Amino acid sequence: MARTIQSLERAAAVLRLLAGGERRLGLSDIASTLGLAKGTAHGLLRTLQQEGFVEQDPASGRYQLGAELLRLGNSYLDVHELRARALVWTDDLARSSGESVYLGVLHQRGVLIVHHVFRPDDSRQVLEVGAMQPLHSTALGKVLAAYDPVARSEAMDSGREALTAHTITDPESFEEVLELTRSRGWAADVEETWEGVASIAAPVHDRRRMPVGAVAVTGAVERVCADGEIQPRLVAAVRDCARAVSRDLGAGRF
Amino acid sequence: MARTIQSLERAAAVLRLLAGGERRLGLSDIASTLGLAKGTAHGLLRTLQQEGFVEQDPASGRYQLGAELLRLGNSYLDVHELRARALVWTDDLARSSGESVYLGVLHQRGVLIVHHVFRPDDSRQVLEVGAMQPLHSTALGKVLAAYDPVARSEAMDSGREALTAHTITDPESFEEVLELTRSRGWAADVEETWEGVASIAAPVHDRRRMPVGAVAVTGAVERVCADGEIQPRLVAAVRDCARAVSRDLGAGRF
Repeated sequence: MARTIQSLERAAAVLRLLAGGERRLGLSDIASTLGLAKGTAHGLLRTLQQEGFVEQDPASGRYQLGAELLRLGNSYLDVHELRARALVWTDDLARSSGESVYLGVLHQRGVLIVHHVFRPDDSRQVLEVGAMQPLHSTALGKVLAAYDPVARSEAMDSGREALTAHTITDPESFEEVLELTRSRGWAADVEETWEGVASIAAPVHDRRRMPVGAVAVTGAVERVCADGEIQPRLVAAVRDCARAVSRDLGAGRF
Repeated sequence: MARTIQSLERAAAVLRLLAGGERRLGLSDIASTLGLAKGTAHGLLRTLQQEGFVEQDPASGRYQLGAELLRLGNSYLDVHELRARALVWTDDLARSSGESVYLGVLHQRGVLIVHHVFRPDDSRQVLEVGAMQPLHSTALGKVLAAYDPVARSEAMDSGREALTAHTITDPESFEEVLELTRSRGWAADVEETWEGVASIAAPVHDRRRMPVGAVAVTGAVERVCADGEIQPRLVAAVRDCARAVSRDLGAGRF
């Protein structure tokens, strides 16, 4: 059994540090935050810089993430089978629903957005591919937690921070949400993550019937809900899309 | 002076290998391609997998790039000052020109696309952020090679592959193109990279007057050109955008 390699684990910790919070850090900050000797941190940064994973600002000498990560992240998307299968279906869902569509997968303790179709109007929107969303409060996260035991335990173990007044934080209520999600086959988030925003998500399964991701529509609560209820036509559209992607991945074939 | 760390260099080589060509590779392929002992390659892959940089397909046992690269690539974009400054201006350029807009920077031996605004019509388009374009044949690449000595030497040292019948490949003609680009302040690519596609690019400079990237409009040659000539209104729009971004970055301030 091969052991893990300490210098690689440390390099990954440097990249994670630069991806969070400050994002531009000096050598001393990096070394002290990670509990490394300055010489060790410098060796790591020098190699990461040589490989394009880190860049150094010539003026301040501070370090930030490098362009090679963008290139590799794009290559990750290129090889992503779920995303490839979902491209056409999520496009259709955005057109039919008139709302933004997201495709998410479990990554670490959250939902990683691997595809995002803009709401089909002329408004300025920011692409969120590569962004993370919370597991416990979003419709995507609830679906993943309901169907994937790893996601469920991440969501149960997390603090389930109250992001709005509507966020479900106590474990019993959250378990009930997961139960409801499994029994009806979809989940909703009505202003539980962002004020004024609601979303509906359904699971995508692969040929082994494993939950591999989730599809969601997201929009203004005034459009996603009517008379205080989630609009059934949007639920049907999201579930249709998730089933179509699952079918393309081989789910339900005998 | 800190030395570089061999295991990190090898890990970066594994990731580059998985980003190119096959994209899903077995342990033996990876070890033999990189000239590593199988045990060494396994230790690298195991650690890369633990950190989320690599994923292993449960069915085939083959390795591919992991989701953490997408998350880190997105964090790279978040901290990218050029891109942040360019967001509004490139949006305006797409609207006024009616064509796709790209923002590119030099990375390794090519142009890395760090921002892409879709052509403002209803057509299906694929986001190309994170994709690479050739230096010698695209308008973005010619601008970078004309203004950035590092990009110029990469373009001169490369094979300058003939991608279409119109690609400029011989070094003397390419030097003339760079000279023309510098003298008029913009570059064009008329079917030199893709048949039927033309583009126009202009350089972005920062507060130290260094070329830090380039902006381009790209579209069908029938729209970008008229009577066999690049449309002057598009050249003016691209140069206006590049100047606006440069001004936001502090260029031309005294």
